[in-house]
Amino acid sequence: MGDLIQPRVLKGFRDVLPDQEAARRKILETIEEVCTTFGFVPIDTPALEYSEVLLGKGGGETDKQVYQFSDHGGRDVALRFDLTVPFARYMAAHSRELYLPFKRYHFGKVYRGENTQKGRYREFMQCDFDCVGVDSPAADMEILLMMHRAFTQLGIRGVEIRLSHRGIFNRFLDHLGVRENSVEILRSVDKLKKIGREKTLDLLRSLVSAEQAESILSFITPRDSNAETLAAMEDLAGGPGEDSGRVSTILSWADSLGLGSSFILDPSITRGLDYYTGIVYETFLQEIPEIGSVCSGGRYNNLAGLYTKEQLPGVGSSIGLDRLVAALEELGRLEDQSSAADVIVFCMDDSLMAQYLGVAQAFRDAGFRAEVYPENRKLGPQFSYAEKKHIPLGIILGEEEHSRGTLQLRDLRQRQSIPGLSLEEALARATELIS
Amino acid sequence: MGDLIQPRVLKGFRDVLPDQEAARRKILETIEEVCTTFGFVPIDTPALEYSEVLLGKGGGETDKQVYQFSDHGGRDVALRFDLTVPFARYMAAHSRELYLPFKRYHFGKVYRGENTQKGRYREFMQCDFDCVGVDSPAADMEILLMMHRAFTQLGIRGVEIRLSHRGIFNRFLDHLGVRENSVEILRSVDKLKKIGREKTLDLLRSLVSAEQAESILSFITPRDSNAETLAAMEDLAGGPGEDSGRVSTILSWADSLGLGSSFILDPSITRGLDYYTGIVYETFLQEIPEIGSVCSGGRYNNLAGLYTKEQLPGVGSSIGLDRLVAALEELGRLEDQSSAADVIVFCMDDSLMAQYLGVAQAFRDAGFRAEVYPENRKLGPQFSYAEKKHIPLGIILGEEEHSRGTLQLRDLRQRQSIPGLSLEEALARATELIS
Repeated sequence: MGDLIQPRVLKGFRDVLPDQEAARRKILETIEEVCTTFGFVPIDTPALEYSEVLLGKGGGETDKQVYQFSDHGGRDVALRFDLTVPFARYMAAHSRELYLPFKRYHFGKVYRGENTQKGRYREFMQCDFDCVGVDSPAADMEILLMMHRAFTQLGIRGVEIRLSHRGIFNRFLDHLGVRENSVEILRSVDKLKKIGREKTLDLLRSLVSAEQAESILSFITPRDSNAETLAAMEDLAGGPGEDSGRVSTILSWADSLGLGSSFILDPSITRGLDYYTGIVYETFLQEIPEIGSVCSGGRYNNLAGLYTKEQLPGVGSSIGLDRLVAALEELGRLEDQSSAADVIVFCMDDSLMAQYLGVAQAFRDAGFRAEVYPENRKLGPQFSYAEKKHIPLGIILGEEEHSRGTLQLRDLRQRQSIPGLSLEEALARATELIS
Repeated sequence: MGDLIQPRVLKGFRDVLPDQEAARRKILETIEEVCTTFGFVPIDTPALEYSEVLLGKGGGETDKQVYQFSDHGGRDVALRFDLTVPFARYMAAHSRELYLPFKRYHFGKVYRGENTQKGRYREFMQCDFDCVGVDSPAADMEILLMMHRAFTQLGIRGVEIRLSHRGIFNRFLDHLGVRENSVEILRSVDKLKKIGREKTLDLLRSLVSAEQAESILSFITPRDSNAETLAAMEDLAGGPGEDSGRVSTILSWADSLGLGSSFILDPSITRGLDYYTGIVYETFLQEIPEIGSVCSGGRYNNLAGLYTKEQLPGVGSSIGLDRLVAALEELGRLEDQSSAADVIVFCMDDSLMAQYLGVAQAFRDAGFRAEVYPENRKLGPQFSYAEKKHIPLGIILGEEEHSRGTLQLRDLRQRQSIPGLSLEEALARATELIS
């Protein structure tokens, strides 16, 4: 054997240990259940695609972050960097097999060779859900309700879904006569939460007149209530429109569903340079707002324009699993390490292994998660193994129990044993102890 | 807007449409449930790794199939081509955080630039489960039981787990005096199921004497019962040993658990050139044996030797999801397109949208999957949408129902309506209709 190879992972990539992976899978399961509860259907797409498909024919700011290479056949290929572009391609490719409105979810890993400072990863999981093929406030609302339900189901209270509408913002910039600077203005406004009012004002003053900068800052400032904010936005944008009417409708539906307090009209939400055209939103956790948005999205008027002439309006959201996990960890909601099994059958004597396997099977058939310690060792290491896996119950079946035809059930949390049980009794007691 | 980009996917890669993706996710869920039922814990590893880590310092036959490239930082990286090598690296990297025996499962996509003829994919999903850190027949047995339970839970009857033991095979080759040809002999034996006895014999005759070739063919031929097969194997291998004793133990446990008929001792199973050293197995479906093995694996004596001096024996299995899905499709077990929602609230009047959202929410709170049709269109297209998603129940709430404060529940399968219901009554009737 030669030198050992160092078992390292690439910078920005991670191994996930069992306790955390179990927690991650539970979160994914919860989000998936919310998606199916709203009638959304799953799809899948390849992680590797033609570069042209993912990046278009030009090249943008993202390109440097993309894992792009030449495959065996000399094809220019790349790893996907989000789930939106593959979804757009998918809709164009399968329009004849699909139906509209198409409500889909897609959970998958994406790849970005970003700077790994400040806890960014180069491989991370996104959970996207979109409703495509219809431009209606009801579709917007369903996405917002899904976001709300996901956080509720995850046991997170104090969720703030902060929303706005790009259409009102654009009308306001028109009205102010600064529409041609909109890209830079959006970029500055987007920094408000990070750099504060004064610095944002400085940035804006370098783009427009001092008076206009003040006006922009006024526009993006929420008032005391959603109604007042909306009135101020309409006022500064030159009056009401379809856009502000839609926002009003959405907020009134939220009220009528008893969820009004979770939805905050916040005109500083613009989703920066993204391709949104209608409502836009970000989600903050009141307990740790500093972690930033854990779920965001908005309405776009043309998903798949790169690939098809069919105009596909839609609305969607994306949950970044990794930031959400970080948030839950910080809130101490990931601590409760769940058990890897309900029952462990300890090995006291190799010659009784057939019995151990049978007992474990009986527990499984009764709906328990059960495992057998697969070799005869001292009880100390076996107990310590059970503890590492947070297993609450053990079965002890040695020479003595075997000769009497009984089992001993041990509550590993309380360190108490119940001897002299038949298998049926052990199953019954286990049910009591675990439920 | 310039020319459209063709929304194509790479050869050997696939989009998955919703019905099939839903079925795939159900299968994965079932396999995962089996893993957790046996106390196995989940892990995750990156899809992209250092090439050296995945390929070792030399280069083997697989290398040409590996997606390997240079990343932004000039690192030589590759997409994983299986889950075993990353698992070996993981065990070496985290030995201090983990405990032994370590029972883990890992489901993930792997990448091989293989020839795409005969329905092979370049991106495919593997479901691996292994028990590492112990060399005992009980650990072997648990993996075999998991395989059996997975297929039972998937509703597949007539599963044949065909197993053998590499140790007995090696002893037999020693005894026959042809051990130095073992690589070529294994390769020939491995082809038996594909090319038949005569051609296998021809291949063997080119490697060893005619008499020896006959002896090898005799060795790999199952007899009328497992006991007779084992006796013949022991006889040809020069007598009983720990290896054949272990096989005997495993088969007797299978009998005592009432599963004996699913386990067939088949000495032609060798897993070819793989790194196995103990028991080896493949799984065939009696209804479609021609699809080949849908789950295979075995025992190895040193998982992570490339990365650590710690000797890690283990036993594991791998289910290829794609071949399994193909098998289930062929058996017609994937046809039953499951519903994407239980209830759809049709949109009869945009001004009643607040009511529709409320009704859907009430259904969700009662445990139904419910969606709202998000805009006012004729009922025809709305019904056809519901049909495409296999949704069994609809709610009709128009002007008339609204003025009376009632709902109409429609059984979309039977095309029957139940008018004049309160929300509570509709929930109760829906429960009856769906359960």
